[in-house]
Amino acid sequence: MSTTAPGRLFSIDRATCTAVDDADPLGRFRDRFTLPEGVIYLDGNSLGALPRDTPAHMQRVITEEWGTGLIRSWNDAGWFDKPRVIGDRIAPLIGAAPGEVVLGDSTSASVFQAAVAAVRLRPGRRVVVSERGNFPTDLYVLESVQTLLGGEEPLGRRLIADDGPTLDDVLDDDVAVVVLTHVDYRTGRMYDMADVTRRVHAAGALMVWDLCHSVGAVPVDLNGAGADFAVGCTYKYLNGGPGSPSFIWVAERHQSSARPALTGWHGHASPFDFEVDYAPAAGIGRFRVGTPQLLSMSALETSLQIWSEVDMAQVREKSLRLTELFISLVDTRLARWGVEVVTPRESSKRGSQVSLRLADGYAIMQALIERGVIGDFRAPDLVRFGFTPLYVSHTDVWDAVAVLEDILETGVWRDARFSRRGAVT
Amino acid sequence: MSTTAPGRLFSIDRATCTAVDDADPLGRFRDRFTLPEGVIYLDGNSLGALPRDTPAHMQRVITEEWGTGLIRSWNDAGWFDKPRVIGDRIAPLIGAAPGEVVLGDSTSASVFQAAVAAVRLRPGRRVVVSERGNFPTDLYVLESVQTLLGGEEPLGRRLIADDGPTLDDVLDDDVAVVVLTHVDYRTGRMYDMADVTRRVHAAGALMVWDLCHSVGAVPVDLNGAGADFAVGCTYKYLNGGPGSPSFIWVAERHQSSARPALTGWHGHASPFDFEVDYAPAAGIGRFRVGTPQLLSMSALETSLQIWSEVDMAQVREKSLRLTELFISLVDTRLARWGVEVVTPRESSKRGSQVSLRLADGYAIMQALIERGVIGDFRAPDLVRFGFTPLYVSHTDVWDAVAVLEDILETGVWRDARFSRRGAVT
Repeated sequence: MSTTAPGRLFSIDRATCTAVDDADPLGRFRDRFTLPEGVIYLDGNSLGALPRDTPAHMQRVITEEWGTGLIRSWNDAGWFDKPRVIGDRIAPLIGAAPGEVVLGDSTSASVFQAAVAAVRLRPGRRVVVSERGNFPTDLYVLESVQTLLGGEEPLGRRLIADDGPTLDDVLDDDVAVVVLTHVDYRTGRMYDMADVTRRVHAAGALMVWDLCHSVGAVPVDLNGAGADFAVGCTYKYLNGGPGSPSFIWVAERHQSSARPALTGWHGHASPFDFEVDYAPAAGIGRFRVGTPQLLSMSALETSLQIWSEVDMAQVREKSLRLTELFISLVDTRLARWGVEVVTPRESSKRGSQVSLRLADGYAIMQALIERGVIGDFRAPDLVRFGFTPLYVSHTDVWDAVAVLEDILETGVWRDARFSRRGAVT
Repeated sequence: MSTTAPGRLFSIDRATCTAVDDADPLGRFRDRFTLPEGVIYLDGNSLGALPRDTPAHMQRVITEEWGTGLIRSWNDAGWFDKPRVIGDRIAPLIGAAPGEVVLGDSTSASVFQAAVAAVRLRPGRRVVVSERGNFPTDLYVLESVQTLLGGEEPLGRRLIADDGPTLDDVLDDDVAVVVLTHVDYRTGRMYDMADVTRRVHAAGALMVWDLCHSVGAVPVDLNGAGADFAVGCTYKYLNGGPGSPSFIWVAERHQSSARPALTGWHGHASPFDFEVDYAPAAGIGRFRVGTPQLLSMSALETSLQIWSEVDMAQVREKSLRLTELFISLVDTRLARWGVEVVTPRESSKRGSQVSLRLADGYAIMQALIERGVIGDFRAPDLVRFGFTPLYVSHTDVWDAVAVLEDILETGVWRDARFSRRGAVT
């Protein structure tokens, strides 16, 4: 396992990885998470690991806040305000100010909220822009927004793509909003948020960022970039648990004029007056929808406690070291099987994942999972590895590549059991 | 405590209540719930009590399915299908067939889904009908639907009310949909679902039922009534926990033509093909939105186990006995303070709650809560008591009225501490 990789300017072996881990300032966070024995978890970009303190916290929320407090907990345990209180705890991770972030329903619902509000702020403009490779829910939700806000006929859609058209090709004074995902879910390519936002604004359009693969993965500075709206999910790098609620960010300057579409009572100016007519709450509160899913939301309280202790600059530094190490090991040890790294090698253009193109990626990923190396597969031919600096080590990276090398070398992935697909691939 | 109520055709005392409880076929369910010592919980119509088995179940979901299973649980623990699997378990409680119910985001989001789809099935009709006293979120969401689907100008709205106009006053061939709550959240008045639906259909409109205060409270037969769409919440009588997900029901005959507005990827025909264009899933699946909030959803698994063992006819029978007992005790013991029962006395028009009009209702309810009798207050002057037959006894009803009588008699509610309002009243 500790052989030196050939053909590199510097040599690295497993002992070096372990030595780097020993000096890792983030190493102490590993024990704050529970991971099963024998697993190298490289899918925290899909579902983050369980924080060690979450089970006890949830037990308390369930037995004390719900079981004993019952309805009184809406006041006594602060349930009603939690979507804003927790939003304020996410704010520092994305360059947002207090009062700019609130939790929502699913990310899809928050994309809808943001996109409708943004398009309405640019009346008369009849085109939305997104990206062919964007996470599909953003595109599907936008299609609905195009129809709902188009009037006689749907708003137009222009999709940029890696092979063109470019953003500059599609921007003109008919574009109302641009909806892009900051870090691409398949390739891990990261946009320059400030530069893209500037170009979108130069065309008079508004910018909606999807931060699902950014928050907790890379430093984000929404206000620094001058963005308009953003949404993100909390169950990946933020470790909120399966399907934990999305968040929505609205720049303070838009909050009083933004008109959301999901006008549920928790977003009303005075929800407990039970008025007949809708009147939006002042500020970010108007982007709330209905009664929040308290149990899913509460799990965020323990994970965000961890995140409040973390220096995002250290996270980024380690993330780049982990992804760089993975890429060089793939280059040196897996090139003979034609494995192609599709994630940008330029660090400023890379999030916290690395994706490989592998013709038989599905079966290979199943073989990896059987060996305890958990990543995931995205059709048609990408295997994805997420590197979450709070609980993935350099040694994990070394070992994961060693297992992948062994699987490719032995061809074990050709076994029929690895090609059977589950409902969720 | 065991004095006989005067002026009634039959006399009842506390011992009689206890004897009735002893013979109660639903009495055995009381132990399936955890309630704090010294509390009479009459607010299960707002937040249902905690099932005894839920904490251990949730601990397993959190530590095993999330902590150990990690991303694999989307397949291995059946996470992806749960919104439909759990929907099928709700179906028998509302007269729905398998494949007609799916879990959604918040109830407000599901009202939006249902209302948009219903209006779209009646193109050309430009009016929506609801009720002035409907739960506000339904009205707020409808306002948004009116704007989004109206084109040049919003769809019109007609609101029926107890003092007119009536449903028949407002129905004509311009009405697209009627959105009503089956059991009124304030008064507990229940509509005749079959009769209302028939009249709405006679006008060529579609019927959307809000079942928030019906499901688990009264027998519901959506297919028997020939209804079109329904939504409901699971955190009241169904005991799913604070903010547990809503459900949506779509009559099978509408499923292939219905077009939802929240077109998230979990409602796509092939979500894991990551296609660029939206294509709705066949059947009820298209009403799913994004990644479901798994922890909040999972708590429903234990509570629905209880519900699968319950005979809804017995629930209704006991519910009527409890509410009738409460009303007669109020009549006989509280009339001298001018307490007015606003809930219909005719049992066929009553859900599973009783509301009293009390000028100083807020402070009186706070005094009740301090004494362990938990109901709630709805502005401007209603105190609400929900009777959940699985864990409320006839003796509870007797004792609750005795406490209320004492509070009115001593005037303790006039103490300043009872008039201070929390964020959530």
